[in-house]
Amino acid sequence: MTDPVLTHALSRQSQLIDALKTLVACPSIGADPAMAQGMEDARALIEARLDAMGFQNRQRLTSADGSGQPAIFAERIDAPGKPTMLVYAHYDVQPSDPLNKWDTPPFEPVERDGRLYGRGVSDDKGPMLIALDTLAAFVAVEGRLPINVKLLIEGEEETGSPSLPGILEIHRDLLAADAVLSADGARWRPDLVTLNIGSRGNAGFEVRVQTAGQDLHSGRYGGIVANPLHVLSNLVAGLHDAEGRVEAPGFYDGVAEPTEAERNEIENIPYDERDAFAAIAAQPFGEANYSTLERLWMRPTVDVNGMWGGYIGAGSKTVIPNEAFAKLTMRLVPGQDPQKAKDAVIEHLKTLLPPYAALEVYGDRGQGGAYAVPADHPLLGAAVSALEYTTGQSPLKVRIGASLPLTEIVSRVLGLDTVMFSFALSDENFHAPNEFFRLSSITDGLAAWVQILRQIAEISPDAFAPYKKN
Amino acid sequence: MTDPVLTHALSRQSQLIDALKTLVACPSIGADPAMAQGMEDARALIEARLDAMGFQNRQRLTSADGSGQPAIFAERIDAPGKPTMLVYAHYDVQPSDPLNKWDTPPFEPVERDGRLYGRGVSDDKGPMLIALDTLAAFVAVEGRLPINVKLLIEGEEETGSPSLPGILEIHRDLLAADAVLSADGARWRPDLVTLNIGSRGNAGFEVRVQTAGQDLHSGRYGGIVANPLHVLSNLVAGLHDAEGRVEAPGFYDGVAEPTEAERNEIENIPYDERDAFAAIAAQPFGEANYSTLERLWMRPTVDVNGMWGGYIGAGSKTVIPNEAFAKLTMRLVPGQDPQKAKDAVIEHLKTLLPPYAALEVYGDRGQGGAYAVPADHPLLGAAVSALEYTTGQSPLKVRIGASLPLTEIVSRVLGLDTVMFSFALSDENFHAPNEFFRLSSITDGLAAWVQILRQIAEISPDAFAPYKKN
Repeated sequence: MTDPVLTHALSRQSQLIDALKTLVACPSIGADPAMAQGMEDARALIEARLDAMGFQNRQRLTSADGSGQPAIFAERIDAPGKPTMLVYAHYDVQPSDPLNKWDTPPFEPVERDGRLYGRGVSDDKGPMLIALDTLAAFVAVEGRLPINVKLLIEGEEETGSPSLPGILEIHRDLLAADAVLSADGARWRPDLVTLNIGSRGNAGFEVRVQTAGQDLHSGRYGGIVANPLHVLSNLVAGLHDAEGRVEAPGFYDGVAEPTEAERNEIENIPYDERDAFAAIAAQPFGEANYSTLERLWMRPTVDVNGMWGGYIGAGSKTVIPNEAFAKLTMRLVPGQDPQKAKDAVIEHLKTLLPPYAALEVYGDRGQGGAYAVPADHPLLGAAVSALEYTTGQSPLKVRIGASLPLTEIVSRVLGLDTVMFSFALSDENFHAPNEFFRLSSITDGLAAWVQILRQIAEISPDAFAPYKKN
Repeated sequence: MTDPVLTHALSRQSQLIDALKTLVACPSIGADPAMAQGMEDARALIEARLDAMGFQNRQRLTSADGSGQPAIFAERIDAPGKPTMLVYAHYDVQPSDPLNKWDTPPFEPVERDGRLYGRGVSDDKGPMLIALDTLAAFVAVEGRLPINVKLLIEGEEETGSPSLPGILEIHRDLLAADAVLSADGARWRPDLVTLNIGSRGNAGFEVRVQTAGQDLHSGRYGGIVANPLHVLSNLVAGLHDAEGRVEAPGFYDGVAEPTEAERNEIENIPYDERDAFAAIAAQPFGEANYSTLERLWMRPTVDVNGMWGGYIGAGSKTVIPNEAFAKLTMRLVPGQDPQKAKDAVIEHLKTLLPPYAALEVYGDRGQGGAYAVPADHPLLGAAVSALEYTTGQSPLKVRIGASLPLTEIVSRVLGLDTVMFSFALSDENFHAPNEFFRLSSITDGLAAWVQILRQIAEISPDAFAPYKKN
């Protein structure tokens, strides 16, 4: 027998799609000051919705100096003695350029072939509305939520969440909860039922190598001065050994080898390496003695994201440049301290630097550690149960190679663990032209969200205590 | 007792300076189609001058298809039984940008502190007029030249002389001579009496390394695909060993080690390495076991002149690019075949290429061999004698690290050797803003040119035969 809350939610899917279209039509590009009205329109729509759902104590949260985009807060404390979830989503979207690569305008959402197209529809407005409609269905059918819910709907996710740590610090009491349930963070693949249990951290910086006070003519100086492009190439070449291992001493400090169990778990995930690499016209390459998914999920990396120097226009110029540049970022795994990992790489570069060149390190990118939800965390258990119930399959535990600042920030500031429970799929062109959201994900998502809330309601709040770090 | 021809020439220095100002005022930038009138004005001035000097058979020489800038030819065959010199100069000049770095407009020549400022004044209009005024003085005083002179005044020197090989091929008979005496090619330093006896050759190409069909996100792909910037850095790092020696097998084929005599000659040249490197805020670095001047004059090089890939704008982008690029050029020394040297470097890069990356080689820069005038060439002897006579010092034999296409082209096509007898100095900002020419060089140059023509007149034409390669 179908859950009456789910029945109600499913009956209102067309209204959800209409609401989603209205929300997507707000160009809420947080990075673009010219889109301030789009941001405000999105906030107003969401706030009206929360008011209609009987959420209370609604307010906008900002960092101490009031700068940046406010996050929307509201709560329903309906279930004394039940767990309290901080439910996370975000209302800002990625910029829409390059506009000429969109088949239809990014802020004029259209349905096509069972998909809704538009900027932000998958990241994160569709998944957000699945969560909100689930909560609304509980209120409509049962008059209350089965657990206590605090909503935190951020406006700076796509710009790196610069205000979020400050907001969490300031509103620590307001946001007190047992765990974070995120409507953001995509599912891996349409063909698998998965739960994401971890993400890599990141750090980055820029370097400049200088060998002379000015550009020099390669005829008049070739062979008698160092070429900074040669020096920088040597530094970059010295980052990895021939087998893809990072050579900076100390970089791997704290990194645990995958356990036999983890290796088996990963090994058992259906993954067609041939297809995956054919799709990007590349060949597998990475650290020796690890599989592709182990490399992506369990191993840290150092990559040069950009490098330049000398004459890079058309034709030829016989110049020996006096400086060369590179932008580097790292992906980090649990156990690594981001600052120490970054320092290890910088120190290694300095060791490789010859005496006739100078190295400047600058452009710190900020950094965040890796995150992994504890394997026995009660919220993870609830998510597993919910997906088993709604899909009939036991979800595979996967990780992502990218970084999810939210998880690391709430873990660090509030001491809370996060489970990603988004119903976006990672092939839906977020951060790219022609972003879309599968309409079938709405049905899947509503079913799973109804179920996970019911599962959480079965957990004693005390069960979360051992995992809360503050 | 001063040579009456020189007395006459010196008496007309102010007219020479006026003529030089008029010629410099023609913006003869061959590379800029908008400056076609400036090119034509310069040609017309020179042609009128040659006619007034009684030169005959004057004509414009072009390549087979008539494209490009014509070279001016004229001759005086005044001295049967005496040697015939092909006297070379060029009337085109470098572009004048960046204009805002000029203290006075480049085509409004002005005298200041014993120098004449303007684009092309040192390269090569001043040195050209020294040669022409010397010839005019002989005609004025003696009614004839002491040797036979064929003038070749090129219009494409600053754009790489693309038509010159064709012009020489087509007009082989017209241009037949015993050797080439060039009014182009600067003296090394104001504090030394030198003769340039050799220049390095050059070759170049561009490479592209590809590792995937598209740019990839460093989170979603970091650690599982090759980064083309890492691959290219490895290739560039593999070009040289730690001691600065080029590692490409075969690159040094045919390169002779400096002889003990050559090393001593170079060692005896006054050269303040500390000052030279302080001026460019660099430290000496190059192939081990050679001095700076040996490296610059006697050793071939490979340099990356430009390199780029990935995100090179402000801030950070977590991209793994799918391709990376580098522009490479070589400087070559006598004994090296340019094609073979280039092929050796390309082959070496291919050897270093890992199986998961593709390498494309393209953008061939054209190439030319190194050139050295034979140590016992009679024209070199005449130049030495002339400088000894006019300066009281024995000129030091120097080379240049840069490439002089003219010398290699006339050697290859006409089989003739060249002596550079310009009175420009290499610090006179040619190819840069505020180009100038020392007025004192006019006196030095006229004296030396009168004397070298007299010295050549003492040589039997038969003495040149063993050196002529065609």
